[in-house]
Amino acid sequence: MKNRRGFASDNNSGIHPEIMLALNNANKGHAIAYGNDDDTGRAVNAIRKHFGDCEVFFVFTGTGANVLGIKAVTNSYNSIICADTAHINIDECGAPEKFTGCKIITLETPDGKITPQMVTKQLKGFGFEHHAQPKVISISQSTELGTVYKPDEIKNLADIAHKNNMFLHMDGARLANAAVSLGTDMKTISADAGVDILSFGGTKNGLLFAESVIFFNNKLAGDFKYIRKQGMQLASKMRFISSQFEAYLNDNLWKKNAAHANRMAQLLYKEVSGIEWVKVTQKVESNGVFAIIPKEIIPLLQKEYFFYVWDEDKSEARWMTSFDTEEEDIYGFVKHLKKAL
Amino acid sequence: MKNRRGFASDNNSGIHPEIMLALNNANKGHAIAYGNDDDTGRAVNAIRKHFGDCEVFFVFTGTGANVLGIKAVTNSYNSIICADTAHINIDECGAPEKFTGCKIITLETPDGKITPQMVTKQLKGFGFEHHAQPKVISISQSTELGTVYKPDEIKNLADIAHKNNMFLHMDGARLANAAVSLGTDMKTISADAGVDILSFGGTKNGLLFAESVIFFNNKLAGDFKYIRKQGMQLASKMRFISSQFEAYLNDNLWKKNAAHANRMAQLLYKEVSGIEWVKVTQKVESNGVFAIIPKEIIPLLQKEYFFYVWDEDKSEARWMTSFDTEEEDIYGFVKHLKKAL
Amino acid sequence: MKNRRGFASDNNSGIHPEIMLALNNANKGHAIAYGNDDDTGRAVNAIRKHFGDCEVFFVFTGTGANVLGIKAVTNSYNSIICADTAHINIDECGAPEKFTGCKIITLETPDGKITPQMVTKQLKGFGFEHHAQPKVISISQSTELGTVYKPDEIKNLADIAHKNNMFLHMDGARLANAAVSLGTDMKTISADAGVDILSFGGTKNGLLFAESVIFFNNKLAGDFKYIRKQGMQLASKMRFISSQFEAYLNDNLWKKNAAHANRMAQLLYKEVSGIEWVKVTQKVESNGVFAIIPKEIIPLLQKEYFFYVWDEDKSEARWMTSFDTEEEDIYGFVKHLKKAL
Amino acid sequence: MKNRRGFASDNNSGIHPEIMLALNNANKGHAIAYGNDDDTGRAVNAIRKHFGDCEVFFVFTGTGANVLGIKAVTNSYNSIICADTAHINIDECGAPEKFTGCKIITLETPDGKITPQMVTKQLKGFGFEHHAQPKVISISQSTELGTVYKPDEIKNLADIAHKNNMFLHMDGARLANAAVSLGTDMKTISADAGVDILSFGGTKNGLLFAESVIFFNNKLAGDFKYIRKQGMQLASKMRFISSQFEAYLNDNLWKKNAAHANRMAQLLYKEVSGIEWVKVTQKVESNGVFAIIPKEIIPLLQKEYFFYVWDEDKSEARWMTSFDTEEEDIYGFVKHLKKAL
Repeated sequence: MKNRRGFASDNNSGIHPEIMLALNNANKGHAIAYGNDDDTGRAVNAIRKHFGDCEVFFVFTGTGANVLGIKAVTNSYNSIICADTAHINIDECGAPEKFTGCKIITLETPDGKITPQMVTKQLKGFGFEHHAQPKVISISQSTELGTVYKPDEIKNLADIAHKNNMFLHMDGARLANAAVSLGTDMKTISADAGVDILSFGGTKNGLLFAESVIFFNNKLAGDFKYIRKQGMQLASKMRFISSQFEAYLNDNLWKKNAAHANRMAQLLYKEVSGIEWVKVTQKVESNGVFAIIPKEIIPLLQKEYFFYVWDEDKSEARWMTSFDTEEEDIYGFVKHLKKAL
Repeated sequence: MKNRRGFASDNNSGIHPEIMLALNNANKGHAIAYGNDDDTGRAVNAIRKHFGDCEVFFVFTGTGANVLGIKAVTNSYNSIICADTAHINIDECGAPEKFTGCKIITLETPDGKITPQMVTKQLKGFGFEHHAQPKVISISQSTELGTVYKPDEIKNLADIAHKNNMFLHMDGARLANAAVSLGTDMKTISADAGVDILSFGGTKNGLLFAESVIFFNNKLAGDFKYIRKQGMQLASKMRFISSQFEAYLNDNLWKKNAAHANRMAQLLYKEVSGIEWVKVTQKVESNGVFAIIPKEIIPLLQKEYFFYVWDEDKSEARWMTSFDTEEEDIYGFVKHLKKAL
Repeated sequence: MKNRRGFASDNNSGIHPEIMLALNNANKGHAIAYGNDDDTGRAVNAIRKHFGDCEVFFVFTGTGANVLGIKAVTNSYNSIICADTAHINIDECGAPEKFTGCKIITLETPDGKITPQMVTKQLKGFGFEHHAQPKVISISQSTELGTVYKPDEIKNLADIAHKNNMFLHMDGARLANAAVSLGTDMKTISADAGVDILSFGGTKNGLLFAESVIFFNNKLAGDFKYIRKQGMQLASKMRFISSQFEAYLNDNLWKKNAAHANRMAQLLYKEVSGIEWVKVTQKVESNGVFAIIPKEIIPLLQKEYFFYVWDEDKSEARWMTSFDTEEEDIYGFVKHLKKAL
Repeated sequence: MKNRRGFASDNNSGIHPEIMLALNNANKGHAIAYGNDDDTGRAVNAIRKHFGDCEVFFVFTGTGANVLGIKAVTNSYNSIICADTAHINIDECGAPEKFTGCKIITLETPDGKITPQMVTKQLKGFGFEHHAQPKVISISQSTELGTVYKPDEIKNLADIAHKNNMFLHMDGARLANAAVSLGTDMKTISADAGVDILSFGGTKNGLLFAESVIFFNNKLAGDFKYIRKQGMQLASKMRFISSQFEAYLNDNLWKKNAAHANRMAQLLYKEVSGIEWVKVTQKVESNGVFAIIPKEIIPLLQKEYFFYVWDEDKSEARWMTSFDTEEEDIYGFVKHLKKAL
């Protein structure tokens, strides 16, 4: 069972072979540390080819990208508005509060997506010194529930942000999956939709410790290099992050991997959706399937194909597919599931 | 000139071939994220084989290891005593202050090594609420000036720390080089010498984003997993750090690499020490050579073999050797140097 | 209209004459600064007479008391659970997040009081490093909505806290009003009900910059003196806070003032409760009355008797009474209100 | 011996009678909390009359004024340069590091005064991301050693700060004493000398919990109200700070008090300077006298007239005079001192 592919998370998968090749290729001689190397220059250009004019900083983790990106545009007396399911709210052990000093204001959502109506209710107390001042709206694309914001939905949130002198941050740990799902490029749902700061991730789509913070308004990036260093996210051997991004973007590996993972989620969805006792709870729009299943079969299933329970009370499972999920994994799992039922 | 080996830093070198092999080998199927995987279990065992009973946590960077390790044993009203040349003082952009809230008290030293006499002067104000309470003595082994603490020197500092209800932290980004220099194992100059928290590094000796925090008093490690996560240093694909440490430790690669780098520094030292206009300023005890050279030749030299100026005022250069430095690099550089003079 | 009494807040009132007398009396010669003076010793004893064995620290503000008290029992990776109406959540500009690093988890309540059921839903993720670890339940007594927890309701929350290795913090900026309302002493609803850390306030009941942090478990207070100093809440001329608390407690001024303020709230409640177009929204259990009134009359009323609108959307006003509110204020206001309607 | 005047600190004294009168006068009816009251308006005007155009914020403590004022102009990756004797360095329990996240860089001085030469050595690493970026030069006027900067000395430091895109902060807890000592007004040695942020104190010169942060460049004050609230330094009953400052400034009470304290220090200096075994160590330029005396007589002296030992190793005493020190205190103390010798 060792190293068997399951549905626990897209970060349980390893490194895509083309990325591993890039790592091997980058391993030549010496290079100036901390990002003043040629690989990094090329990687930044590759990102600009996809996203347009922007400032790019590589970091190690998605949490690092989110926290430092938000720190760049906030002061400690600000607040951040996001869905209560947001990674920054429930999966980062309070790193945003600790590092930025800001308050997080959470919005309850049925599907992980926040709406202008929800946000507007929290836009109060501007200028009132007792109230943490709202400064960032943060959304995840695709969301932690596998759903995807449409470009207009993002634009509307960006408009609200900008009208209120705030910024729109996007946690794009799975941006590739969202773009593929919508049939757009990545720029359409970030820069073009009014996003100001993007956490653009690679780790969940076949890369190794390779995440980035992208500022579409270059002025916001002015002091980010200090924030990154003070935030313990500056890599000395930077070329080994950069070279991954170059490989990820130059031949559309990002798209290939995300498309595959999404397809596997659709297949899984199709296979389970007819089964009695299995109730899919969220639209399957990227690479995750959420479903309520009988509590007693969960340990049985997990033994063969590991996954996490998303909501213990509701007995809701989360099944994530990955760039390396194979059709046989889906069929094997569903067979197992049916048998268990 | 691209990727030419120079003397800028041991982190300008790439990944040692055996480490790269380990990365390739670890890249099989899925593994539970965040450290509950087999590779990590084995790597922790490998570390315990070298250091004895301890708690081990892998992180990405040396700054991360230092800051989080110190955070584990301090409260914000504490102070940290170290050499003014310490990495935590001058090379981490204030990360220790920001993340721990602590004050750093610096000691001027001729050689990067602090002494009991120096420390004792700062051990005051205990119990006095206006004074940040001293809690950590932090030393670098080997130091940022290439010098090495002898086991007894470490023990004496540990004794002072423990007598005052404080802890001894060691920045061991180059611990391997120090051990080789002293002809000891690594335990002798850390656990056995009274060190409480060790930042044990791999990056500067052939690894990729592979550092660790080691607690020799297991009680200190109790909540460290939260500190690491909140400190944005928890790797999802942990096995790719762990597998490096396994490869690094199991066949004494750590020793081989450090011995080679130290040898190259000795060679460089030998070659330059007779030259007029070159004044070596520090004992060459690990893998760095510090020397005052005429200011006007520096740019010339840097064009061929890049290195950093340590002290502009004194025109003091720092030449670091690495696991992949070759004898021809030394001879080539010295030839160049002589010509420039 | 200058200095006219209104219903804006109990901190719009000044200093009670007996407290002012105490300030004048304390103003004799020199006294050791920072709390090692006789006045402070007596004040601490006065508090112990009321609350039993405890450790006491005086501070300037209620925000200071709340934030520093919570800091004493948390690490930055912890979370704090409270009502979304809690002062620590909406009235402190993010000071708790900034100074403690903790996440605040808010509970929606109809009346400002949280229940075991609400809290229990948030007690999850213990031991899971991605999740900020719940450490404090914080309640306000009386609440920001003028309601009051019964002793058993507090005990039940304390039990939940202690069963989960957490602490119960009470924001007692208006503790006196709650005790009077319940007909108990203050110990019954704090120390005896399982509260671990109490912010015991005086400012809202006739004192000047006089608040305190009380630890009922003395072990929790061990390092608080450093936290207070680092938190910028250590008064040099401490005797002028202490002497107020002595005067406040020794002749039951706390009770007299709170009883009066509560009585005035009851009178106001009685006078408005029959009026058409006025809908009182919360039980009047301490010194505040909340009522929905027609939006258009609000500015008219405010001109004569200033008060704040609690909820703009609902047109809900908050009327606070104080130790110095007089019956004529109530009658005058109600007359005015009726006329405006 | 109770409440006997000694030489421990100018904050061991109480409240000046005129200030107490102002407190009593301010205690009339209700006033809008948090500073939107008439007293505060008048106090700000009084300050502007003395200092010219500026933004003024009242706070409780000198530590609060220093920390929050510096926070207003820094980001966490900045550093602050000051004398190692500075209050922000040794007397605030690390509050500046904790609240601003900045590194403090200390300069050794013979007399508590830093010079352009000393500062310039630390102005390095601009633009280098590994280095905390210098942003503030902070000086104390008068210094913690009782010495005073001349206007030109301040201007020179301001010039260096401004040339390097930095700010000059002045800890003016004893600004009045310095102005009197120099025979200038307070503006000459703050606003006119290039100071950007002034901590203007009253507590050490007869006020009660009354300090302020003054910005001479109004742009720097933009968000300070949030910083003050989040920093737990916003007073609800603000009028009781404001009214003190009004009384302090309108009839030159500041000057009268400071002149008296300075005079008492001169008298003390004159009386002790001829005595064998007493070696005055610092110029007596404000209200403190520093002197080395035989260690064994210290406890004897302290029993009658309490004071602190500044430097245990050197047996150096610090004797502070205050607005309420009387000639008989000096003569009595000196008599006692001679007897002890």
